[in-house]
Amino acid sequence: MRLAVVGAGAVGASVVELAGEYDHEIVALADSSSAAVDDSGLDAASVLDRKRDSGRVGDADPADALEADYDVLVEATPTTLGDAEPGFSHLRRALERDRHVVLANKGPVAERYGEVRSLEADSRGSVLFEATVGGAIPVLSTIDDLNGQVTAARGILNGTANFILSRMAAEGLGYEHVLAEAQDLGVAEADPTFDVEGTDAALKCVILANVLYDDSYALEDADVEGIADLPGSALELAAEDGRTVRLIGEVADGAVRVGPRLVPETDPLSVSGTQNIVQLETSHAGRLNISGRGAGGPETASAVLADVGRLPPLE
Amino acid sequence: MRLAVVGAGAVGASVVELAGEYDHEIVALADSSSAAVDDSGLDAASVLDRKRDSGRVGDADPADALEADYDVLVEATPTTLGDAEPGFSHLRRALERDRHVVLANKGPVAERYGEVRSLEADSRGSVLFEATVGGAIPVLSTIDDLNGQVTAARGILNGTANFILSRMAAEGLGYEHVLAEAQDLGVAEADPTFDVEGTDAALKCVILANVLYDDSYALEDADVEGIADLPGSALELAAEDGRTVRLIGEVADGAVRVGPRLVPETDPLSVSGTQNIVQLETSHAGRLNISGRGAGGPETASAVLADVGRLPPLE
Repeated sequence: MRLAVVGAGAVGASVVELAGEYDHEIVALADSSSAAVDDSGLDAASVLDRKRDSGRVGDADPADALEADYDVLVEATPTTLGDAEPGFSHLRRALERDRHVVLANKGPVAERYGEVRSLEADSRGSVLFEATVGGAIPVLSTIDDLNGQVTAARGILNGTANFILSRMAAEGLGYEHVLAEAQDLGVAEADPTFDVEGTDAALKCVILANVLYDDSYALEDADVEGIADLPGSALELAAEDGRTVRLIGEVADGAVRVGPRLVPETDPLSVSGTQNIVQLETSHAGRLNISGRGAGGPETASAVLADVGRLPPLE
Repeated sequence: MRLAVVGAGAVGASVVELAGEYDHEIVALADSSSAAVDDSGLDAASVLDRKRDSGRVGDADPADALEADYDVLVEATPTTLGDAEPGFSHLRRALERDRHVVLANKGPVAERYGEVRSLEADSRGSVLFEATVGGAIPVLSTIDDLNGQVTAARGILNGTANFILSRMAAEGLGYEHVLAEAQDLGVAEADPTFDVEGTDAALKCVILANVLYDDSYALEDADVEGIADLPGSALELAAEDGRTVRLIGEVADGAVRVGPRLVPETDPLSVSGTQNIVQLETSHAGRLNISGRGAGGPETASAVLADVGRLPPLE
């Protein structure tokens, strides 16, 4: 497949770097202020070197990438809430041109799912978005393969929050202390709100709900509680009882809920550090657990490229 | 898709029962002595009732099912070692007719993988076999999606052996006692050799090796040790150290090994009871863990039907 990648952060850059190993070609790469476009294929190393050295990927206008001769648009700009722009417009343009779209950006499918599906229905292109839920973990493709048999999903979908809770439990340290440590390690951002308030996990659960119920949930439909107010004593009490606290997202019975929950220490759900896990309840195949790295450039790019491999050839 | 199902045991019967939920049609079902064939589609309930009541699925000859007008042959006869017959001949006939094959039977891909791939190369049909490794767990499709990025695999691929080890550890009971209990519960067969000697786990690892290395491993290439001679004292010693013993199959560095191994009690690998788990090591996406039910009619049928959904339309 011929890929145009919009967004040249960790995920976009990794897609460019790894595409060759999956036998795909990069014909365009755009960041927010520049683009490189070459219908005969870009050289991954040189375009990424240029970005590193000059801050620009090339001399073209970002909009030129959207008009390149690609089969699949990889949308890897940052997730935005509300109107999910500019990701949504990028997706619309690709579908209008009857091209496929693979999203790493959660916005369009978390905030405007009904519109995405309606644009897709009018296009010869398809939209896939495995990378938006659980990074490297193959959640959405497994749900798709099970063809309607998945009845509920729950799991740990934010590595930053899980790292903080794991460290608080293991070391008996308070929230503020562990958050500072996570920031030093680069596991938490300077402004950790998105992760510790549960917003990021909630967006992923909203996407799961949209897929499971084929409906248009958005962030405001989720019942969300974060971990910032969790006292260390709660973790101590849990430990006395062989349990721990995890930030669990759940999609069940039509509702989306995210919040700190007690989990037995030996439960598959109590993964440690920045790991993510998803449990799928199925009608006929029992419960499936899938865990692995929920974030990171190459990890998320692997999910993007697996999606590309699942797309049918464009007629 | 139009399915012909050969083998009317737990898996074959579940495929017939669930196919409608996946929007597929059953045009033939064969057991070892009879068949039902109807190009306009069999009624699942009535053919399974007949099997239950009379021991026969219909009045046709089993061979007639192989000549029915199907898109996909589902091979669900029991796994046999050595020549993998009659499963292998069923698969060959379907590929000669340019039809797809989905295997629940491990024999052809564990014992004659090179021949299977060579027949497939000469056919318009494809061969998929997710159900042969880990029951409901989506192992092979995940490996396929990762397109060569999986470098090694290990896991627990036999629920009977895992049940016995879990019970020995939890209750401090000896092997013979727990085996008898497992037989009473229907978790172990009257002749448990295939499970407790590691043969079943080894066949699954051989299949994983064939997929990972695109080579022709067979059972004799595996280094296999079972659990029948494991003393209860080994589990007690492990427990004093926070560890337990599991029958682990591993495919790494070109070798296939199955044997009892020490595993930390908190390790994702130490699943309990009849659960299966597979860990995949990847070049760019870290380690993935996938666990769930490794056996059972509906569970295995779900994997078969997921494979059917992944097949391309026949030209």
